[in-house]
Amino acid sequence: MDDSLRKLKQEVLEANLELVQQGLVVSTFGNASGITRDRKFVVIKPSGVDYSALTSEDLVVTDLEGNIVEGTLHPSSDLPTHLVIYRSFPKVGGVAHTHSRFATSWAQAGLEIPCFGTTHADYFHGPVPITESMQPHEIENGYERNTGNVIVRRFAELDPTEFPSVLVSGHGPFSWGASAREAARTAVLLEEIARIALYTIHLNPEAASISPALLDKHFLRKHGPQAYYGQK
Amino acid sequence: MDDSLRKLKQEVLEANLELVQQGLVVSTFGNASGITRDRKFVVIKPSGVDYSALTSEDLVVTDLEGNIVEGTLHPSSDLPTHLVIYRSFPKVGGVAHTHSRFATSWAQAGLEIPCFGTTHADYFHGPVPITESMQPHEIENGYERNTGNVIVRRFAELDPTEFPSVLVSGHGPFSWGASAREAARTAVLLEEIARIALYTIHLNPEAASISPALLDKHFLRKHGPQAYYGQK
Amino acid sequence: MDDSLRKLKQEVLEANLELVQQGLVVSTFGNASGITRDRKFVVIKPSGVDYSALTSEDLVVTDLEGNIVEGTLHPSSDLPTHLVIYRSFPKVGGVAHTHSRFATSWAQAGLEIPCFGTTHADYFHGPVPITESMQPHEIENGYERNTGNVIVRRFAELDPTEFPSVLVSGHGPFSWGASAREAARTAVLLEEIARIALYTIHLNPEAASISPALLDKHFLRKHGPQAYYGQK
Amino acid sequence: MDDSLRKLKQEVLEANLELVQQGLVVSTFGNASGITRDRKFVVIKPSGVDYSALTSEDLVVTDLEGNIVEGTLHPSSDLPTHLVIYRSFPKVGGVAHTHSRFATSWAQAGLEIPCFGTTHADYFHGPVPITESMQPHEIENGYERNTGNVIVRRFAELDPTEFPSVLVSGHGPFSWGASAREAARTAVLLEEIARIALYTIHLNPEAASISPALLDKHFLRKHGPQAYYGQK
Repeated sequence: MDDSLRKLKQEVLEANLELVQQGLVVSTFGNASGITRDRKFVVIKPSGVDYSALTSEDLVVTDLEGNIVEGTLHPSSDLPTHLVIYRSFPKVGGVAHTHSRFATSWAQAGLEIPCFGTTHADYFHGPVPITESMQPHEIENGYERNTGNVIVRRFAELDPTEFPSVLVSGHGPFSWGASAREAARTAVLLEEIARIALYTIHLNPEAASISPALLDKHFLRKHGPQAYYGQK
Repeated sequence: MDDSLRKLKQEVLEANLELVQQGLVVSTFGNASGITRDRKFVVIKPSGVDYSALTSEDLVVTDLEGNIVEGTLHPSSDLPTHLVIYRSFPKVGGVAHTHSRFATSWAQAGLEIPCFGTTHADYFHGPVPITESMQPHEIENGYERNTGNVIVRRFAELDPTEFPSVLVSGHGPFSWGASAREAARTAVLLEEIARIALYTIHLNPEAASISPALLDKHFLRKHGPQAYYGQK
Repeated sequence: MDDSLRKLKQEVLEANLELVQQGLVVSTFGNASGITRDRKFVVIKPSGVDYSALTSEDLVVTDLEGNIVEGTLHPSSDLPTHLVIYRSFPKVGGVAHTHSRFATSWAQAGLEIPCFGTTHADYFHGPVPITESMQPHEIENGYERNTGNVIVRRFAELDPTEFPSVLVSGHGPFSWGASAREAARTAVLLEEIARIALYTIHLNPEAASISPALLDKHFLRKHGPQAYYGQK
Repeated sequence: MDDSLRKLKQEVLEANLELVQQGLVVSTFGNASGITRDRKFVVIKPSGVDYSALTSEDLVVTDLEGNIVEGTLHPSSDLPTHLVIYRSFPKVGGVAHTHSRFATSWAQAGLEIPCFGTTHADYFHGPVPITESMQPHEIENGYERNTGNVIVRRFAELDPTEFPSVLVSGHGPFSWGASAREAARTAVLLEEIARIALYTIHLNPEAASISPALLDKHFLRKHGPQAYYGQK
């Protein structure tokens, strides 16, 4: 086995376990994947396998069409969604999908998450977007691939590096990043942002989004050429 | 002791402990049971015993009329409810009853749980049903048996394999499955579904149920002859 | 030291630690006490001491007037409240006071907790009562003793064995029982009842109390001469 | 290294870890600092460093102008806010900033926290104040220093020893005390107060603040010359 693929498997395993450790997973819901640098192979969690027993040997390797290259288990049934994201968003190196409580509740409520504060602005350059509802013909044929398509349509005028998560209406969040590790971390932060946003509208149903100046300040002090947060 | 009965006791013990480990139990509330394959004997938790000290020796074995066959302790006071479920739903192999927070809150609110998302649709083929309130004469005589009867009445036109839980109005949830283990797992998933449904109506009191197409897609990709989720 | 006093100290220590283990305590808030069988001596937690370092040696023994009989630390500042309860409710053997989140929130909201379900009815024979607000002159002189008095006034027509907790308006709950252990257990159950009652009115602001028949059934199957729950 | 500075570093390290252990921190959000007795040097957490790996060697020492005196890492980007607080509030020996869930939600909702009960009154002599929103010119230039200035403006007529926390509108809480340890403890208590205040208005949107008599009683039995809570 190729050495970079071995490392990717280890990283994807750790990203999946991170989702569990952070309390984002109930039962077998949720999955994280990563793509090789040459964008030829994707490593993903197998379908419906208990996290407590998961090893990097169980992970499934496929090409970008979903053909299995390595592994004896079925890949996550959400694989086609991940593949559409990798094909459409060339800077994305990892994807994480969960049914985490608060982000899923916003998805079920059919609402984007407004940017109520700087915690949110540190990671998203505006509201967390939500897809439109899927049509019956999109659901009945090629459902998981069409879930990817409805995400990509939502990003027609959005930059996925400025909005590293999306809520699929009536379903739950997909998050991404430069790597599987970053995707899992974004999933954790999204859950926290979704949680405090729920509490915020609980306290004040008329709560306002922060000003464009404050949004830009926080997003841009962490991201892009003017960033000055953290260590070099 | 018969070997299959020994295995059933072990499984019922583990199902009871699973309820505790998953945080569904406060104090001594809650109980799980299982029935032998020949549907002659039921194994159930004793009444009011602390879970931390529970062993498979403490479990009580009864026949389908509730006569004690093995065990020196009183069976759970909810035994008659379990027995009605076993007698009426021939595919049910295990039953779990809890006072888990979120499912109990829906039961106390007197509301069925609408199907707001795919997490719910993966396990229930529609809203989680709720019973009607029990009448004084049903409460005063044969209360626990009548709790079973009010559940069975609610399923006059529902298939218990498509709706593996019910909320007893003003009381709490009963869940079931092919085995005690599956019943306990369903109790855990129900609690999660109840929780995110509460958050959903919190965010959007007008939240809509998902479309019939999406409901069918998720329920049927996990259940029945067309299922393709998980490993074979 | 008298042997029964040594046992009482151990039980009071464990009751205080139970409050912490069950998550009812933040910082140094909360205290449990117990009274000897002859109702001459009360054992209580010292004031403002960190629970993690608490030993049975730190506990303070007083008489029913609050005079210190044993111990080198100041008793809990709530001691006078405990003493009024012991003097007025002769069947009470232990008292627990916490600022647990959900019960305190009902106290702050100025509302009794309606009996929305059987979990509640298993422990309280009706709504959890709340005191009236204290008057300035009651607060300015003898505040802690008057806290006891406002509790006792609320029970003019209530039996403390049927209602083993009270909410002090704008403050928090006091719970009691036959022993310090039982008082602490009641505090834990009250918190759970307060929590699911909040979720219930969240789901349905018009939620109804359960029927008198169901209330009596559940309270009386656990308490009094007709009880049949648990082991003999 | 000066011995008192070594002790201060150890205390600041422990204060930062306390924030994590108490669940106030998600990701790398949050920071605690302390100032030497002669008010010449400030010790603060480095920017964007993972708490699990933090040692007292990583802490950064600066003067009151923010010039680095010791340490090889960048200080927390919030350092200028801490410095304004130290320069303006001479009795403050430690500062803690978090994005803790409930306090942040009040900040995002743009609301001060009313004093609904005695838990709150034990630590704050009235509502927890909130700053006004910052203006674009305050955000674009010297943002972190101006965050300090908007806090200080809010305290024009408040005593920081009677109100040991503030909510920065749209951002989150800053807390302080005589030491870094006390600042972290206040941050923990503020979060609890913010949490039960949210539950309180959830139960009763018309909930009233406690009376001035009860507010004074609780605040003054813990603070100032008449205090009688705790040990001497």
